[in-house]
Amino acid sequence: MPDIHGRRRAALRALLHELDVAALLVVDLLNIRYLTGFTGSNAALLVHAADEPEAEHRTVFCTDGRYLTQSQRQVPDLERVIDRSSALALAKRAGEQPRQYARTGYESQHVTVEQLDELASAAGRNIELVRVPGRIETLRMIKDDTEVEALRMACAAADRALAGLIEQGGLAAGRTEREVARDLENRMLDHGAAGPSFESIVATGANSAVPHHRPTDAVLRAGDLVKLDFGALVDGYHSDMTRTLVLGRPADWQRELYDLVAESQAAGRAALRVGAATAEVDAAARKVIEDAGHGENFLHGLGHGVGLEIHEAPMLGKAGQGRIAAGMAVTVEPGVYLSGKGGVRIEDTLVVRDEDPELLTLTTKQLIVV
Amino acid sequence: MPDIHGRRRAALRALLHELDVAALLVVDLLNIRYLTGFTGSNAALLVHAADEPEAEHRTVFCTDGRYLTQSQRQVPDLERVIDRSSALALAKRAGEQPRQYARTGYESQHVTVEQLDELASAAGRNIELVRVPGRIETLRMIKDDTEVEALRMACAAADRALAGLIEQGGLAAGRTEREVARDLENRMLDHGAAGPSFESIVATGANSAVPHHRPTDAVLRAGDLVKLDFGALVDGYHSDMTRTLVLGRPADWQRELYDLVAESQAAGRAALRVGAATAEVDAAARKVIEDAGHGENFLHGLGHGVGLEIHEAPMLGKAGQGRIAAGMAVTVEPGVYLSGKGGVRIEDTLVVRDEDPELLTLTTKQLIVV
Repeated sequence: MPDIHGRRRAALRALLHELDVAALLVVDLLNIRYLTGFTGSNAALLVHAADEPEAEHRTVFCTDGRYLTQSQRQVPDLERVIDRSSALALAKRAGEQPRQYARTGYESQHVTVEQLDELASAAGRNIELVRVPGRIETLRMIKDDTEVEALRMACAAADRALAGLIEQGGLAAGRTEREVARDLENRMLDHGAAGPSFESIVATGANSAVPHHRPTDAVLRAGDLVKLDFGALVDGYHSDMTRTLVLGRPADWQRELYDLVAESQAAGRAALRVGAATAEVDAAARKVIEDAGHGENFLHGLGHGVGLEIHEAPMLGKAGQGRIAAGMAVTVEPGVYLSGKGGVRIEDTLVVRDEDPELLTLTTKQLIVV
Repeated sequence: MPDIHGRRRAALRALLHELDVAALLVVDLLNIRYLTGFTGSNAALLVHAADEPEAEHRTVFCTDGRYLTQSQRQVPDLERVIDRSSALALAKRAGEQPRQYARTGYESQHVTVEQLDELASAAGRNIELVRVPGRIETLRMIKDDTEVEALRMACAAADRALAGLIEQGGLAAGRTEREVARDLENRMLDHGAAGPSFESIVATGANSAVPHHRPTDAVLRAGDLVKLDFGALVDGYHSDMTRTLVLGRPADWQRELYDLVAESQAAGRAALRVGAATAEVDAAARKVIEDAGHGENFLHGLGHGVGLEIHEAPMLGKAGQGRIAAGMAVTVEPGVYLSGKGGVRIEDTLVVRDEDPELLTLTTKQLIVV
């Protein structure tokens, strides 16, 4: 029974067979992490596409001397080469066995124009380097159980941080956006996060109308909408959640805006069905906002995939392509932004299932009043 | 009098004239930040190489709608295009004016193989896209006053954080590496950092012998060497400093190891002279350690450039190329690592000057005993 990384490499090999390449040279560090578990900052991986178990024996991992011990621990199951030039070293190695690597793929959406020259030169003229863009990213769209568990823990760290922040009076008039952001981030660390999964957004009052506001020294005041968009990083996986709260008694327009966005978000979640076009999911949520006359104030796509990257495939937007499949982890995050006045965004991270999607961010979507 | 970004663009134009290209399409976000001040996550810049002031009028900046307000503030001096496809939009624009952009350079060390196809397709067949690798990075090696000031502030935030940590008992037996790292990072935020400039290294006891140790739950104990390698991020600029301390009375071997590394580090700083080969600077520091019989325990290069990246040109190592020039900001960081026992590294960030280099990290290099 191969481990999780072995299973992922086997899935990649099935794609490589279709492309009729003998191997794939992987240079992207996130893809290498996905396929091996290695977390260092310099590595390359040459995945051979022969049949099992031969393929695993011919698959080679390369990193530099700084990561000798770490790679022995993280990648015990593959042949290891220690060489600072990583990808070049593996290209050279392929070039020395032209029969086994006659057509070798490379990640053409990651390899730069200059790098390709170096790789071709290292591989020599007996090897044909073939473009293979985005195949590992395609695999990564569908999360396996290990990945979902990491996402669950990342979402739980964010949920707990927000619960603690609210319970312990961390969201109070007089504090600045920056103070709240730092408090929230420290609480995520307390709950097992390695760090925030992106720069936290804390936006109070009129700032909440700026979709990607950076925390400033602006002070939270009674009556403000406060938008919090933040996430935790656990085992390399990113959670992503937005909640918009009100400090003190909500004004009618705030409650109406909130209810509208909550309805849109529920419609988006309900549309997240296996087989749906990604653009249809966006449309389902967008229609609620458009019907209320706020279409122009919903300034961005409905959501995006999350995993080893905070934004990854699939994109849920007007121009989104492809269809929803079981195991995809995505955000659903409609927002309405009234410039100079305030905005509301509500965002969950979910995993698509054959039945209802599994909600990973569990904080209530009732309007929180603090 | 052009502002700092205008001056940088003018310096780039001088290089472009030498290459006989009409313009350079800049896609790397750090290079765009360097040339315009823009800090968003999606942008492209088409720098025209005509003579001034015509060149500035023809230079175009592109970002997407999320950054409309931000780009008006940060890049008020250039024509602005709002288009999500950024680099493609500018390539298309160049293609519409083939006389002015007949030969247009692109950053071939950043543009991927797939992107080049898209750019060529957007530019059309009347434009020749020409490889221009690394020119902006060459300019960035020499820091101007604005950059040195940001580095100074970043180094000061780190110095103050460490001073506070020591004074307030933050380095004490019983704390974990992780706790110390978090304390240090929070203190840097208190002193104006936007964040740590990289993942802080706190390594106690035998862990200090691992050059790039990640903080764990290992507990600091009396008699430990404690290695702290950390930095602050201010205005996009990265500081980098390592100090190795002893908890309680130092053993003779610890003091000897410390004195050796301190002597090596002083030799490295002394060798940091305008006109010196980068490999010579490494050699000057390395010789001290080799003469003491520890050459094999100095596992890495002597240092690296710092600026908008934590590691950038020039590299100071055995295989380093090029010469030291006034205005370069570099680290000098020899280390000796005794596996299973402990290690010492001492690192400063400095700016090369015609006379002595300017030291930016001001924490004492006397052995600190806490």
